Amino acid sequence: MSHIIKLTIAYDGTNYNGWQRQKNGPSIQEEIEKSVEKVFKKRVTIYGAGRTDAGVHAKKQVAHFNTDLAIPAKKVVYALNSVLPPDISVIKAEYAKAGFHAQYDAKQKTYRYFIHASRSRDPFISRYAWTVPYRLDLEAMKAGAKALAGKHDFRSFQAKDKKDRSSVRTVYGISIKKKSSVISIDITADGFLYNMVRNIVGTLVDVARGYIPADRMKKIILAEDRAKAGPTAPPEGLFLMEVSYR
Amino acid sequence: MSHIIKLTIAYDGTNYNGWQRQKNGPSIQEEIEKSVEKVFKKRVTIYGAGRTDAGVHAKKQVAHFNTDLAIPAKKVVYALNSVLPPDISVIKAEYAKAGFHAQYDAKQKTYRYFIHASRSRDPFISRYAWTVPYRLDLEAMKAGAKALAGKHDFRSFQAKDKKDRSSVRTVYGISIKKKSSVISIDITADGFLYNMVRNIVGTLVDVARGYIPADRMKKIILAEDRAKAGPTAPPEGLFLMEVSYR
Repeated sequence: MSHIIKLTIAYDGTNYNGWQRQKNGPSIQEEIEKSVEKVFKKRVTIYGAGRTDAGVHAKKQVAHFNTDLAIPAKKVVYALNSVLPPDISVIKAEYAKAGFHAQYDAKQKTYRYFIHASRSRDPFISRYAWTVPYRLDLEAMKAGAKALAGKHDFRSFQAKDKKDRSSVRTVYGISIKKKSSVISIDITADGFLYNMVRNIVGTLVDVARGYIPADRMKKIILAEDRAKAGPTAPPEGLFLMEVSYR
Repeated sequence: MSHIIKLTIAYDGTNYNGWQRQKNGPSIQEEIEKSVEKVFKKRVTIYGAGRTDAGVHAKKQVAHFNTDLAIPAKKVVYALNSVLPPDISVIKAEYAKAGFHAQYDAKQKTYRYFIHASRSRDPFISRYAWTVPYRLDLEAMKAGAKALAGKHDFRSFQAKDKKDRSSVRTVYGISIKKKSSVISIDITADGFLYNMVRNIVGTLVDVARGYIPADRMKKIILAEDRAKAGPTAPPEGLFLMEVSYR
């Protein structure tokens, strides 16, 4: 009988070419597929909830695979972790209902982006944050972010070369916090366009630097034009934090 | 005229064969020497306060080099960081008094060791801590650590193949704290033998696991025999935190 195993996975994406299996260089998907093959002697395809980019991290990526094995879920965790590299860790395994699909059934996702607001680099932070050496106006950033909440066409924040069928998404919440020199930006939405979070963050940093007035954010969204928004923030600050299902 | 520039340096040691320049593989010392050469077009030798091992990190390593250049100290920081890899960062540069030597003038050093007491690995912690999946008795560990304070012959905690002229050192303080699942062990001493902190930590983990009774620590020290102490803890949990000078 066929089962579906749902995995919750954490990874440091620094040394990977992203989630998705590809010809050039290692991917998270490939590492997990290899670990399943090594431990259970079965070739499987792992389907992830979101295809994180090269260098992007995850605290709780969700993925699934189909198998006719019947192993206790806890054993799956220990077995996979015993062969996975130390920068990838399965934190949970569970049997899912028939028909479950990690990507298509996802109802919302939360991403977090870390900015290290500092003139000096810190080797223990720069791996997980974008170091921005300029004075940043946090209140302006918060004011600019408000325009993003709600249902909009986010084409202005979509990578130019990518065309999703629809670029309308609903942002349920965006919250910005600062703790000593580290700013964190949490964005929860029903889905994200390619590079959407990094393009939003790059634009909000331009707002915080005074390059873009906070009240221009609305116009940037309405323009539906990538050229009107700010630059793409680098991948190392981005974490997939959570994927929610009904 | 010749000057001495004193540097304070932070680094993530994961990808290096340790502080000291060597034939096989990259070292922190070599990276800094290369950065000085690139920026100031001068070959120099960088002298570090402590030769951290492969995989060991530093929050505030101290080093010095001699130069006839006269550049503002602040510019040295920005110039070196502009060419150093992101896992090494100069956090301070200053002109030292004539005759200053980062290693010989050091009066005391503090090392910190992180233990992740957990059955599950965390990719964001395991790079900077030793993940120990067993139940650890923190009170026993603290009781065992008390015997280490003071002036002792620490031969029992010295790597077997290394012979310092004297293995007598004075431990000024050792403190153990726990915050959620992470235990930190701080040790301050006038100097450390090769592998001393990692051998002490490996032994204290054996105490915390119940393999070694806490009150046997005194006997282990007095034995002056490496075979009587516990195993060597892995390098990834170790940080050189501070070097003090008169």
